[in-house]
Amino acid sequence: MQGPHEVVVLRYGHRPGRDDRMTTHVGLTARALGADRVLLPDNATQAAETIADITGRFGGPFAVEQSDSQQGIVRNWDGPIAHLTMYGQPIQDVESDVRSSLETGPLLVVVGGEKVPFELYEHADWNIGVTNQPHSEVAGLAVFLDRLFEGRELDEEWLDADRTVIPKETGKKVIPV
Amino acid sequence: MQGPHEVVVLRYGHRPGRDDRMTTHVGLTARALGADRVLLPDNATQAAETIADITGRFGGPFAVEQSDSQQGIVRNWDGPIAHLTMYGQPIQDVESDVRSSLETGPLLVVVGGEKVPFELYEHADWNIGVTNQPHSEVAGLAVFLDRLFEGRELDEEWLDADRTVIPKETGKKVIPV
Repeated sequence: MQGPHEVVVLRYGHRPGRDDRMTTHVGLTARALGADRVLLPDNATQAAETIADITGRFGGPFAVEQSDSQQGIVRNWDGPIAHLTMYGQPIQDVESDVRSSLETGPLLVVVGGEKVPFELYEHADWNIGVTNQPHSEVAGLAVFLDRLFEGRELDEEWLDADRTVIPKETGKKVIPV
Repeated sequence: MQGPHEVVVLRYGHRPGRDDRMTTHVGLTARALGADRVLLPDNATQAAETIADITGRFGGPFAVEQSDSQQGIVRNWDGPIAHLTMYGQPIQDVESDVRSSLETGPLLVVVGGEKVPFELYEHADWNIGVTNQPHSEVAGLAVFLDRLFEGRELDEEWLDADRTVIPKETGKKVIPV
């Protein structure tokens, strides 16, 4: 989204096969709900291709990148870091601080897979729980982004799409652009 | 959540194996974000068991049910029906109407799988898009519930849990209850 600094989602950990759809959904959710980029592990090529394909058809700007060192990205990040985890502080208590931090530098939003190292908890500026209940990293990311952008992401315009969906009360309408 | 009428999530369609995790995440998201029940297809037994197991450990009230006729549930539902679809009307335009409808009867929230019949679009009181972009039924459900309950679901208390997570700035804390 347009803003002083970008919002980047880092998918931490990926098991090829088993995690393909979840990682794809993390990336598509990041795109649809206002993040500027998603960083995936090197072994998540299938998810990366699907997300890039959707961006090509439905528009951007949105970037998909792969990296062999997620720990390196976290260690070297020059800006605030928010780690989504069911063990963290309630999102309703910290969301305004995170929003303010967007004035200071690019925000890295870390979405864990099965295992994340303890170092990540220490490195993060906030460990944030969207409830302290076990549910879904995709759901947590969605609520986080909707609150971070206070709903403005829902009115985002998409550039360079080759098709667009026209909202309808009943049925489906897709037009070429 | 406590309210005049219950909120029930219907997972429409499920392919065993391929959809197990997505259907599980739909159910866990429904539970964590304030719905009262989730209705799954008959062939989603593995997801149903996982959701029931989490409810047993982390608390309720929350019910998981399976049915062999999702079309029958929709046809016979005595209350408002909201169908989440990327082709629908923007959530920000209809959410207050949906919220008001909770005064009139139990709300059925339909979350599609790959294919939903056209009849569902006609039967729904609202076809609702959380953006008109392709992303994730889990993400759409999460944003829908957070907006429906205006964040009150984040403060929900859980009964009959055998453990609870204590929010922490860093690390993990789980205590028996």
